[in-house]
Amino acid sequence: MSTVTLLSDFGTADGYAAEMKGVLVSGGAGRLVDVTHRIRPGDVRAGAWVLHRIWARFPPDSVHLAVVDPGVGSERPAVAARAGERWFVGPDNGLITWVARRFRVEICVELDPGRVGIVPVSDTFHGRDLFAPAAARIAAGSRAEELGPSFSPSDLVRLPIPEARRDGNAIRGQVWHVDRFGNLITNVPVEWLPERPQVWVGDGSVRGLRRAYAEVEPGEPLLTRGSMGTLEISVRGGSAADRFGAGRGEGVEVVPAGEGGEG
Amino acid sequence: MSTVTLLSDFGTADGYAAEMKGVLVSGGAGRLVDVTHRIRPGDVRAGAWVLHRIWARFPPDSVHLAVVDPGVGSERPAVAARAGERWFVGPDNGLITWVARRFRVEICVELDPGRVGIVPVSDTFHGRDLFAPAAARIAAGSRAEELGPSFSPSDLVRLPIPEARRDGNAIRGQVWHVDRFGNLITNVPVEWLPERPQVWVGDGSVRGLRRAYAEVEPGEPLLTRGSMGTLEISVRGGSAADRFGAGRGEGVEVVPAGEGGEG
Amino acid sequence: MSTVTLLSDFGTADGYAAEMKGVLVSGGAGRLVDVTHRIRPGDVRAGAWVLHRIWARFPPDSVHLAVVDPGVGSERPAVAARAGERWFVGPDNGLITWVARRFRVEICVELDPGRVGIVPVSDTFHGRDLFAPAAARIAAGSRAEELGPSFSPSDLVRLPIPEARRDGNAIRGQVWHVDRFGNLITNVPVEWLPERPQVWVGDGSVRGLRRAYAEVEPGEPLLTRGSMGTLEISVRGGSAADRFGAGRGEGVEVVPAGEGGEG
Repeated sequence: MSTVTLLSDFGTADGYAAEMKGVLVSGGAGRLVDVTHRIRPGDVRAGAWVLHRIWARFPPDSVHLAVVDPGVGSERPAVAARAGERWFVGPDNGLITWVARRFRVEICVELDPGRVGIVPVSDTFHGRDLFAPAAARIAAGSRAEELGPSFSPSDLVRLPIPEARRDGNAIRGQVWHVDRFGNLITNVPVEWLPERPQVWVGDGSVRGLRRAYAEVEPGEPLLTRGSMGTLEISVRGGSAADRFGAGRGEGVEVVPAGEGGEG
Repeated sequence: MSTVTLLSDFGTADGYAAEMKGVLVSGGAGRLVDVTHRIRPGDVRAGAWVLHRIWARFPPDSVHLAVVDPGVGSERPAVAARAGERWFVGPDNGLITWVARRFRVEICVELDPGRVGIVPVSDTFHGRDLFAPAAARIAAGSRAEELGPSFSPSDLVRLPIPEARRDGNAIRGQVWHVDRFGNLITNVPVEWLPERPQVWVGDGSVRGLRRAYAEVEPGEPLLTRGSMGTLEISVRGGSAADRFGAGRGEGVEVVPAGEGGEG
Repeated sequence: MSTVTLLSDFGTADGYAAEMKGVLVSGGAGRLVDVTHRIRPGDVRAGAWVLHRIWARFPPDSVHLAVVDPGVGSERPAVAARAGERWFVGPDNGLITWVARRFRVEICVELDPGRVGIVPVSDTFHGRDLFAPAAARIAAGSRAEELGPSFSPSDLVRLPIPEARRDGNAIRGQVWHVDRFGNLITNVPVEWLPERPQVWVGDGSVRGLRRAYAEVEPGEPLLTRGSMGTLEISVRGGSAADRFGAGRGEGVEVVPAGEGGEG
């Protein structure tokens, strides 16, 4: 019985997430772990981000159930995919984008409600009626190929991932994600940074790469190396998103300190 | 050791829910599953709604601990009840209303602190001091009848459930619940709908029953069959509650399209 | 395999808490229990409060992982401490204050990343890279002394705890914590109260100690004995924090009814 993790945009106040948990328990899943149910409704991009942060921390053969599904009831396929020795179950709408950026998808199955064994399936809640039963089956030891026809992993939906690029002395990047603390996680590889970086974002700039928040005074902004190896822009004890008026997708420009930028 | 699910209005920021979990773990409960701790403080009606959504998804003999308890310390009894092969433990204030609407309550016990074995019981936190210990005892295999005197299931508090009614060509119903997405879950059985329904709610109306959100454009309202078999009013990618200015209890009128209503 | 509880200020929307859970599962921890991830960012005092509410409810040898860590990357030590037959793992910044107020800390180890066995450790996320692995090791049976050098429990950081004091007929105290319901939990021992207490707090006062909320009308304020044995100020079905404009640290004055105060 493998661990099953749950990621959704259901919130917890209505019981939708708990309905999935009940199906998983009844279906023989092992340990259940809540990742989050607080993805903004329909924000597939944020769901994909969180999924890629967490999946590799769990043991091989864990099943990651990810349901952010604004297209439920449309023609988008329901899939179970295997990559990096873990399983991913959810709608084929790009949730696997970040995982598939680094790890080859080895198996890819379109879930067939008849074969998953739960009929009828509602048209509005595949999380409970199709994805959770499929995740339970896989966690309990079923082969994914029993649950539907295989298809080519290259046909999985992938969202575009904006990448940073060099432009002379400058680096032009973007904010990939804004977290609860207001940290701006960018796509600029830290190894690209000049010795004395100045970073322009939103309506301000920050200089110098730090090792830790504690190296600046409370309320001061700083640059650090994030756990993905890219530049993060933070404010100690505060929100860089608020400080710089910047959100996901905001442009970021890095120049050697003393050159370029507006100031 | 049976699964115990937890539903409360405690939030998670203060540790009250975790105190219950500690009592359950120490008391020998099996798997713990958070349903929600985000019921609005004191909103028994919302707690009852969520409870009835989730209970049957869990395996037989699961114990559903439900604590929304604005009357703690008053004379309201503390109960353990069995219906539909599951256990329900909490204050007798109507939380079981929806479950008992469809399933006969077979066993009903008033929890006696002395027999549950946890004394003294505080006057302000029965969730931790009485309900969680009782739930742990039942989950660990105790007979409910050991925990207090039985009483007649017909004496359990039940909240009034507004039901839809036919009125000539029209159907007059109400909104039972508004979920996180702003979907309006009504009490109008879908099988009552005319062939081409027009639904009036709040300050607008919607026509035509759809199978799935994807059948309308983003931002458009739609009518679907909810998982309870009743009419739901939604906006694709948005909130029907906001769109129509409607909340729980709001009146809903259904007429054959082209007739009745205001427009 | 011992139970591991998780307390943090990470929220759940970003996956940080789930990264810790993955490390714990992979590291061989037993049951995982979420206490809360909704501590206000950096609010060590609130984290310490919640931790002391919950720890003793869990079985002996449980491991309480507590990560509210505004000083991550600074010189503050990372510690594993044993008190009251349980383990506490987290930054040494005062999270253990309340636990250590009543229970002697018996073992105290400064976690050494090399000995915990996870290298490299990031400078910004010790929760995932150091505390969770250490908690998993202890839960799986390792001796804490294997994870780093011991030091004197008297060197653990403790936050000042404001205590109530007698002042003639009056008692002068403070609000220790404000919970989700707006209850004001004070530091005034209930056994100090005069027979007919009048309590002044913020911009109002309340008279008379009650056993339960149900003893006053909805909307009325009341005084009760909290589960810590100190005075709590509440409003039935409402928020005393809002009613009296009072928060954590607010002064509280108790006098025999009819004497002192402003009114």
